[in-house]
Amino acid sequence: MFDDPVFALHKGGKLTIQSTVSLTTRENLSMAYTPGVARVCEAIAERPELAREYTWVGHTVAVVTDGSAVLGLGNIGPAAAMPVMEGKAALFREFGGVDAVPICLATQDPDEIVAAVTAIAPSFGGINLEDISAPRCFDIERRLVETLSIPVFHDDQHGTAVVVLAALRNSATALGRDLGDLRVVVCGAGAAGVAVTKMIVRGGVDPARVMVCDTRGVIYRGRSNLNPSKAELAELTNAAGVTGNIAGALRGADVLIGVSGGSIAEEAVAGMAPGGAILALANPTPEVCPEVAARYASIIATGRSDYPNQINNVLAFPGIFRGALNAGATKITDGMKVAAATAIASAVNPPTIDAIVPSPLDPRVAPAVTAAVAEAARRDGVCR
Amino acid sequence: MFDDPVFALHKGGKLTIQSTVSLTTRENLSMAYTPGVARVCEAIAERPELAREYTWVGHTVAVVTDGSAVLGLGNIGPAAAMPVMEGKAALFREFGGVDAVPICLATQDPDEIVAAVTAIAPSFGGINLEDISAPRCFDIERRLVETLSIPVFHDDQHGTAVVVLAALRNSATALGRDLGDLRVVVCGAGAAGVAVTKMIVRGGVDPARVMVCDTRGVIYRGRSNLNPSKAELAELTNAAGVTGNIAGALRGADVLIGVSGGSIAEEAVAGMAPGGAILALANPTPEVCPEVAARYASIIATGRSDYPNQINNVLAFPGIFRGALNAGATKITDGMKVAAATAIASAVNPPTIDAIVPSPLDPRVAPAVTAAVAEAARRDGVCR
Repeated sequence: MFDDPVFALHKGGKLTIQSTVSLTTRENLSMAYTPGVARVCEAIAERPELAREYTWVGHTVAVVTDGSAVLGLGNIGPAAAMPVMEGKAALFREFGGVDAVPICLATQDPDEIVAAVTAIAPSFGGINLEDISAPRCFDIERRLVETLSIPVFHDDQHGTAVVVLAALRNSATALGRDLGDLRVVVCGAGAAGVAVTKMIVRGGVDPARVMVCDTRGVIYRGRSNLNPSKAELAELTNAAGVTGNIAGALRGADVLIGVSGGSIAEEAVAGMAPGGAILALANPTPEVCPEVAARYASIIATGRSDYPNQINNVLAFPGIFRGALNAGATKITDGMKVAAATAIASAVNPPTIDAIVPSPLDPRVAPAVTAAVAEAARRDGVCR
Repeated sequence: MFDDPVFALHKGGKLTIQSTVSLTTRENLSMAYTPGVARVCEAIAERPELAREYTWVGHTVAVVTDGSAVLGLGNIGPAAAMPVMEGKAALFREFGGVDAVPICLATQDPDEIVAAVTAIAPSFGGINLEDISAPRCFDIERRLVETLSIPVFHDDQHGTAVVVLAALRNSATALGRDLGDLRVVVCGAGAAGVAVTKMIVRGGVDPARVMVCDTRGVIYRGRSNLNPSKAELAELTNAAGVTGNIAGALRGADVLIGVSGGSIAEEAVAGMAPGGAILALANPTPEVCPEVAARYASIIATGRSDYPNQINNVLAFPGIFRGALNAGATKITDGMKVAAATAIASAVNPPTIDAIVPSPLDPRVAPAVTAAVAEAARRDGVCR
């Protein structure tokens, strides 16, 4: 195991904290620390909004997990989640210029998570929730958004949803289709599936033409045992009230969005309308093998870096938080998310079937997302 | 206010998080993040102790405050405390090579503080409590030490106590006195006063010859309204059962240690035995003005950088945590603290009345403390 170069790279972790001021003389020590620092403390005590200007809070985000749904590994707990959170923090730095602190929580109780994040919130300018399992994640995020006056954003939901919306818009363009005409099947009704469905509808897909499937088949109004988020999807989508399994849902569909982590049989995919798009985002094993998917769709996208059209949240979250922080936003609105998707989609011009999204490493994306999100925050009136 | 160079220096805060790995190619992105990172996560899930080796947790400390007793400013709250915590984190980096994350809590309820710190503990290799008011700080620290298997250390108590013990030992040497013969008065029975008293006794001062004063005068066994920590001091010190005010206590005393933040009248100090030491540590205004103190004592120490003998916690905490982390210590024992004091005292050789402690900027101190603390941790059997 320890011959693996991945372990060599992870030795000692992937992050370090540096001071941006010098502390090597009595003079600068007396300014950066006592007694000089007291004047800055007093100013903030009098006018709390100065904290964003005179501390690092204005450019700092906590990347918070309870380790309950880490990558495709499941509930591996807080200690084992840390390498992913460090990686996320490194991406925040690299692409967004954001200082991100990984926080792995020793509890998976929603009340305790909300209490802990609320307690540490004055230390940060935003909260990126990460790898928290559904449906707990919906309630935890909602409560934190209500309680805190800083942006709270569950990236597994909204980061994925933003990039999928960008990919779907560019897919429609590359296929010469109208977004509102597409028949879309979302496979998976967990954190990503719920958010993707809402986001693509918010971004122009006709909800009547959307169906969402979970392990029990198509979600429809009146189905038994729907949790609140699935019940919401049942109201929003599937106007025709289709029931049955995913094969039935896919018959004649133009787009399949896989966010389930499971596998979809070739027979089911074979029923799709020709010339459509398959976004199979499970990592590392897509719901539909790309080679199989290519027999039935013109556009294939995955979460993997070794195929074209990699759907990677890093296209979204660094710029979304940087834009929200720059604008002094108190929350991240749907309008800000749609603006992010538009900026990502616009970074490939014109989109083609092999380039519906920019490369995750494209350095032009995060600045474009930042600017678009900050503008949308001001437009939506959520800035301090 | 904003013409003040201290504000210019604090613009944007004093810390930044950097990645120690490159993320600019698909190859290294796939190692530092998905899919490669999953192998590190799985290894830690199987063997949790690997987190210290393959994440930054092994060299990371949270600097936690509730903003209830910040410097001499009092209860200014979490947002206004951040500049001090950032400064502390910068000192951790500069002198200890420790990655320190400032955490300012939105609660001052002891139960909620314990819950929040317990929740975030898997993210860190140690917890440095800071600027939490007495007597709440004693109970909070005790509960966290009991609950967590990583070092927890309230610096206002123990960092101060370690440096004072070092200063007192070197004072005895410089004065040609025996530590065990000195009559010592501690003025102040808050966080620092309690810890200083216990530490100097642990380090060789005769408890029968120590008296502690609070705002109501000398603490003696049976005095009314003693909180638990003061009751403990009443048992430990003042064997003669002296009552009365600080002037009485100081009559004939060799050493005055001021950790009260208040002011001590010249008439009281005038009663001390000649040729002793006054450590007046309140910041920025010492309990006894150094010019006045010089009339009655041979050694004068303060917390200030503009007089000789600056008693500054930075001599202790970076090396204490670095040593504890290096050794894999699960707690910080009295033995480790005494070892730190010995290392600090040994850094001035021979001590003189104008040099009872090394300069806070002396780069030799933290490595010496680190080595001594790690060795003591192994000796005390508290390593993983």
